Amino acid sequence: MIYLDHNATTPVDERVLEAMLPFLSTFFGNPSGLYRLGRIVRSAIDQARQQLADLVSVSPEQIIFTSGGTEANHLALSQAEMSAQLWISAIEHPSVLETAKRYYPQFSELLVDVSGKVEIDQFAELNFKENDFISVMSANNETGVVQDIASLTASVKQQGVIFHTDAVQALGKIPLSFNDLGVQLMSLSSHKIYGPKGSGALVFEKGFNVQPVLVGGGQEFDCRSGTENVAGIVGFGKAAELAKQAIEEFQTILTLRDCLEQQLALIPGVVIFARDENRLPNTVQFAILGVDGEMLLMQLDRNNIAVSSGSACASGGGEVSSVLLAMGVDPQLAKGAIRVSLGRQNTESDIEAFIAVLKEIISQI
Amino acid sequence: MIYLDHNATTPVDERVLEAMLPFLSTFFGNPSGLYRLGRIVRSAIDQARQQLADLVSVSPEQIIFTSGGTEANHLALSQAEMSAQLWISAIEHPSVLETAKRYYPQFSELLVDVSGKVEIDQFAELNFKENDFISVMSANNETGVVQDIASLTASVKQQGVIFHTDAVQALGKIPLSFNDLGVQLMSLSSHKIYGPKGSGALVFEKGFNVQPVLVGGGQEFDCRSGTENVAGIVGFGKAAELAKQAIEEFQTILTLRDCLEQQLALIPGVVIFARDENRLPNTVQFAILGVDGEMLLMQLDRNNIAVSSGSACASGGGEVSSVLLAMGVDPQLAKGAIRVSLGRQNTESDIEAFIAVLKEIISQI
Repeated sequence: MIYLDHNATTPVDERVLEAMLPFLSTFFGNPSGLYRLGRIVRSAIDQARQQLADLVSVSPEQIIFTSGGTEANHLALSQAEMSAQLWISAIEHPSVLETAKRYYPQFSELLVDVSGKVEIDQFAELNFKENDFISVMSANNETGVVQDIASLTASVKQQGVIFHTDAVQALGKIPLSFNDLGVQLMSLSSHKIYGPKGSGALVFEKGFNVQPVLVGGGQEFDCRSGTENVAGIVGFGKAAELAKQAIEEFQTILTLRDCLEQQLALIPGVVIFARDENRLPNTVQFAILGVDGEMLLMQLDRNNIAVSSGSACASGGGEVSSVLLAMGVDPQLAKGAIRVSLGRQNTESDIEAFIAVLKEIISQI
Repeated sequence: MIYLDHNATTPVDERVLEAMLPFLSTFFGNPSGLYRLGRIVRSAIDQARQQLADLVSVSPEQIIFTSGGTEANHLALSQAEMSAQLWISAIEHPSVLETAKRYYPQFSELLVDVSGKVEIDQFAELNFKENDFISVMSANNETGVVQDIASLTASVKQQGVIFHTDAVQALGKIPLSFNDLGVQLMSLSSHKIYGPKGSGALVFEKGFNVQPVLVGGGQEFDCRSGTENVAGIVGFGKAAELAKQAIEEFQTILTLRDCLEQQLALIPGVVIFARDENRLPNTVQFAILGVDGEMLLMQLDRNNIAVSSGSACASGGGEVSSVLLAMGVDPQLAKGAIRVSLGRQNTESDIEAFIAVLKEIISQI
């Protein structure tokens, strides 16, 4: 199989699995246990927290482990007061957008330009009030477009807002320093960086008084109760350590992606979305005029090639990408969208095979 | 090490780990992926759902996988309307009690008798109104006392209440049929039945319209969004299958526990809590007059014996067990509480060693 859907999920790195295994066997204790076995497990969590902290340049006590990106986003948004005005960019992941819609009566969408970016000048002109809550993702899961979060936060620095960024897709693909971004809250996920599913984190600014959603045993500094998913946390930590070492690999991946795009661009009718924008090095989203995306995905699957027709979560629905619609893409074209997201293991021959199969499918239509 | 803290957490059964491993390596796909790898992973989740359904005698579509017991309890309680009256038994796990306190202005504690049981006659006399929400755990984590949930639900059958039971400790230790209990909602956890941490479930009555807390991608029948913790779910399913096969093993464990209690009872000053009550077969909670529980736990730890001084979550706090206080136990005595909870691997020689070390510690005081 040629796997080209790394923005949906990544394989668990074998070194990550190796780090996890002792905590699924010998070191099975509850980290709240006062005895030796509990303390060993507790220190493994401490180490993972340090590893993740190192990746995003924060102190370990600024990290709350969660069950994944969705819970991290939920916990982030729940820091807004119920009466607060929420500003959610139009291209956010459903776990942000739907959470805002469900829980907050006062909520506005931040418009994006044709490349899917929150436009800084327009943004700075909005009338933010103290305690307003703003959420703009660091990089988009579909197009890969990277937002200029640092400029956005700088422009509202004096206004007392809470700024959250969903950095689930950016983590491990581009350098990510929490302090440089200037946000108060940042969501992360393990399974997008070769760690296990079911593990995520919320990073918060020093001094930010995080209010828990899950209460009970008081784990995670009283910010997220529930017996810790120890193996999941240890795996996330190891994946973070490896991601820090591997950030240069994305230069190689970028070269592959550019090669793929050059070949795609030669196919008649192909439109590559946000091609000229600053994007994640591994992501390309495109459509072919008159070709249905889901049909294309199925045909590629029959040829053992795995790609996505949009965000994985929504991909079962056959809906048109709301990200592309927000960018003003014609709905008919948006319906043809295919996302290819490369990973560490992809090679030139994967790209060649993909292009060859794609051309064959098109020729048969 | 002699591990006697199975109510805090259990080792992962090696057959469970074996079932999980493919989903931490080869079958790493996102279950929402439309391609073959996604479908394989999706059917593994389906199978796990069936395995868990079989253990508690429900249909698979009545199960929502969560990140653990705490999230399941949170999701359960969030089914109550904000204006509803909540009735929470005084011996509930903090994840139930604290959730009720935090989110519901109208909340009453259900008193328990000296053995920690919600007394059926008193209960039936309470003035429940339609849409009231009642939460009584199936079995207590500290004392092991089993509640008569079926009688409690039968007594309020006509009153249109929502009845929830936290069955995290009961699961796998006593037979548990959801329909026989007569509840609308039941919380479960994987890591108490030799499955991995970070995996739990909420079971709901057919026709109950579960409202999600985590929204976004629409996973788990739109009741709990977030990319599934696939390996965790598969492990929970396998653990459920094994628990169903192993339910008779608890006869052996009960024999061991009774043997332990007989020897404990011979030690001067030992008080065994709720000894004459219907309890989980693996659990004994006791105290020794004039002996501090935490000190005892530390001394046992030095002798490589792991026990708990109460619920694992709270055990770091040095607080007195609220369960024992609710039962009217003298606070001084409650402070000495030690919980021993046996598991599949414990043997007679573990019990002998525990008793011998305990006697030695006492003799040195």
